[in-house]
Amino acid sequence: MKKLNIASIPGDGVGHEVVPSGEQVLKTIADIHGGLAFEFTSFPWSCNYYLEHGSMMPENGLDQLKPFDAIFLGAVGDLNLVPDHISLWGLLIKIRREFEQSINMRPAKLLKGVTSPLANPKDFDLLVVRENSEGEYSSIGGKIHQGEDEVAIQNAVFSRKATERAMRFAFELAGKRRQHVTSATKSNGIVYSMPFWDDVFKEVSTDYPSIQTDSQHIDALAAFFVTQPERFDVIVASNLFGDILTDVGAAIMGSIGIAPAANINVNGKYPSMFEPVHGSAPDIVGKGLANPIGQIWTAKMMLDHFGEIELGAKLLDVIEETTTAGIMTADIGGKHSTEEVTNEIIHRLKSL
Amino acid sequence: MKKLNIASIPGDGVGHEVVPSGEQVLKTIADIHGGLAFEFTSFPWSCNYYLEHGSMMPENGLDQLKPFDAIFLGAVGDLNLVPDHISLWGLLIKIRREFEQSINMRPAKLLKGVTSPLANPKDFDLLVVRENSEGEYSSIGGKIHQGEDEVAIQNAVFSRKATERAMRFAFELAGKRRQHVTSATKSNGIVYSMPFWDDVFKEVSTDYPSIQTDSQHIDALAAFFVTQPERFDVIVASNLFGDILTDVGAAIMGSIGIAPAANINVNGKYPSMFEPVHGSAPDIVGKGLANPIGQIWTAKMMLDHFGEIELGAKLLDVIEETTTAGIMTADIGGKHSTEEVTNEIIHRLKSL
Ligand SMILES: CC(C)[C@H](C(=O)O)[C@@H](O)C(=O)O
Ligand SMILES: CC(C)[C@H](C(=O)O)[C@@H](O)C(=O)O
Repeated sequence: MKKLNIASIPGDGVGHEVVPSGEQVLKTIADIHGGLAFEFTSFPWSCNYYLEHGSMMPENGLDQLKPFDAIFLGAVGDLNLVPDHISLWGLLIKIRREFEQSINMRPAKLLKGVTSPLANPKDFDLLVVRENSEGEYSSIGGKIHQGEDEVAIQNAVFSRKATERAMRFAFELAGKRRQHVTSATKSNGIVYSMPFWDDVFKEVSTDYPSIQTDSQHIDALAAFFVTQPERFDVIVASNLFGDILTDVGAAIMGSIGIAPAANINVNGKYPSMFEPVHGSAPDIVGKGLANPIGQIWTAKMMLDHFGEIELGAKLLDVIEETTTAGIMTADIGGKHSTEEVTNEIIHRLKSL
Repeated sequence: MKKLNIASIPGDGVGHEVVPSGEQVLKTIADIHGGLAFEFTSFPWSCNYYLEHGSMMPENGLDQLKPFDAIFLGAVGDLNLVPDHISLWGLLIKIRREFEQSINMRPAKLLKGVTSPLANPKDFDLLVVRENSEGEYSSIGGKIHQGEDEVAIQNAVFSRKATERAMRFAFELAGKRRQHVTSATKSNGIVYSMPFWDDVFKEVSTDYPSIQTDSQHIDALAAFFVTQPERFDVIVASNLFGDILTDVGAAIMGSIGIAPAANINVNGKYPSMFEPVHGSAPDIVGKGLANPIGQIWTAKMMLDHFGEIELGAKLLDVIEETTTAGIMTADIGGKHSTEEVTNEIIHRLKSL
């Protein structure tokens, strides 16, 4: 029996509505499989937790998470309760950083039955590998002077180690996919970090002679996500560029509510964290409107991570069968509730 | 007689095909107007110029440009000839910086007759005000160590002066449009420059109580350009964010070939520069495929800049009449050449 201990952090807002969906689906899959079991331990860390305790998680929060096989997170942040820089840097980004989850993987793929905002979308199926530990998100910088002379400086740190790690990860993945890696750059405008990024990309690519490559400036690349997303296989991007591209990727899929993500600890020292791309969406809380597919697809990425590739593929098939059958939430044009969509997916899994 | 002396820099690639279109259109408009004249002086500065002379422009190039009323530029850069960091920083960005063209204005609007890649685009009409002098494009940074310990650092400088200038510019424009300014931020992830950006935005907005505002993180905002572009009026963005947003803006318009831009010197010390968003597109040179609309719409922005608002509006009308009549280049689904589209626009202007 392969037993997986998962730390669940529903977090804020709709996280509480979709994390249970994901858990139920994973339990159903384990039942079907037989030799697999998931045990979920829930942690209440969130903006509400902050209001009560003055921090987003306890001081030993990371120690509590460390023994788990993975973290299953909903969404963090609610501007009505706590400023973002506190909620996100005290929980989401803290876990990403401290647990060395240096890669953020985010697929964008047209699901059958889901209407894209694009007029005639070809069948795109791309995967963004986002460097997740440094770059434009390096929290180094400061301000000087006051009034009209005030200047703020933000430093972006790009280390060869982290840059190369993200790129090698991308090339390895491309080897199992369509053998193509696109590098997101902006070396024509950002003249220290991005030429360095380009150099490392060129070097790493020589180790993968069978993988095709190209480089696109982030402005053009974001536009190509709209006009020709089918062109891309794996895209490797810096922290910020990956962030932007994957929201555009979610948009062309039809809704941010279906986009999944995985924060991968590549050295195996700490658990990886699985969280959908969407936020806590306080405006739709309690209405049954939250799309559970993002969280459930994220569960599929967790299955992949544990080597359960076949189960993962089955789950994605069932998600697509469900959307094809028109069982969908309002954000993608359906009339069904979070629960109805979840139940349909579970029902279909059980009848496999 | 209002005589305007324009420095034309066709630059590279299709710049040589579309700048003449823009010039012809402006001359036609001047003839119609009667009291207006354009005189164009052409400068051969480009990658080819570099290959011959070892620099993108002569040492006194800026002095040569300074007396002109405006600069009308095609496109700069051709990777087959000269690396981007040389061609762009030696000509395009050099002019933007040295002539204190601190604002880059770029509209995105659905032209009648042009098919957007979006499925059911509502009538969007937005204007990005891009800070054009600093931010992520500050060329400050460097590298340290070699091999696996190598680290590159890029500094982004945000001064209150430049930030506030871009924002005030955006608010002033919004006052003449639909009274709404959106700030592009990323203060949840980039924690020195962007919270500063937010603070300045909040302060500046108090001076414009009748203008509505909102702030969107760049990732969500880029996605909204795809899903709900009609939501936006004026958007104020940093150098990089503005760059990315305007390429997505061009994409949803149907082609980067139609997107116009203006680099504005706000203090009146130097000429402003008008250049379309598209690049030099070496792959389509000499085939008559280049879309002249980007350059001609850019000419319209130049007319606006010289206070010829009515003429500018007429020109945009004629552009739309032409696209509505199906006289278009291949990039927007037509069958006509650069010359045919240009001639049609001129013909329609003459029969006004
Ligand atoms: C060519 C490049 C440096 C430039 C920029 O990023 O400013 C271009 O993309 C633009 O938007 O005008
Ligand atoms: C909430 C925010 C800090 C975060 C990020 O930019 O990383 C989010 O946008 C994401 O993509 O997970």
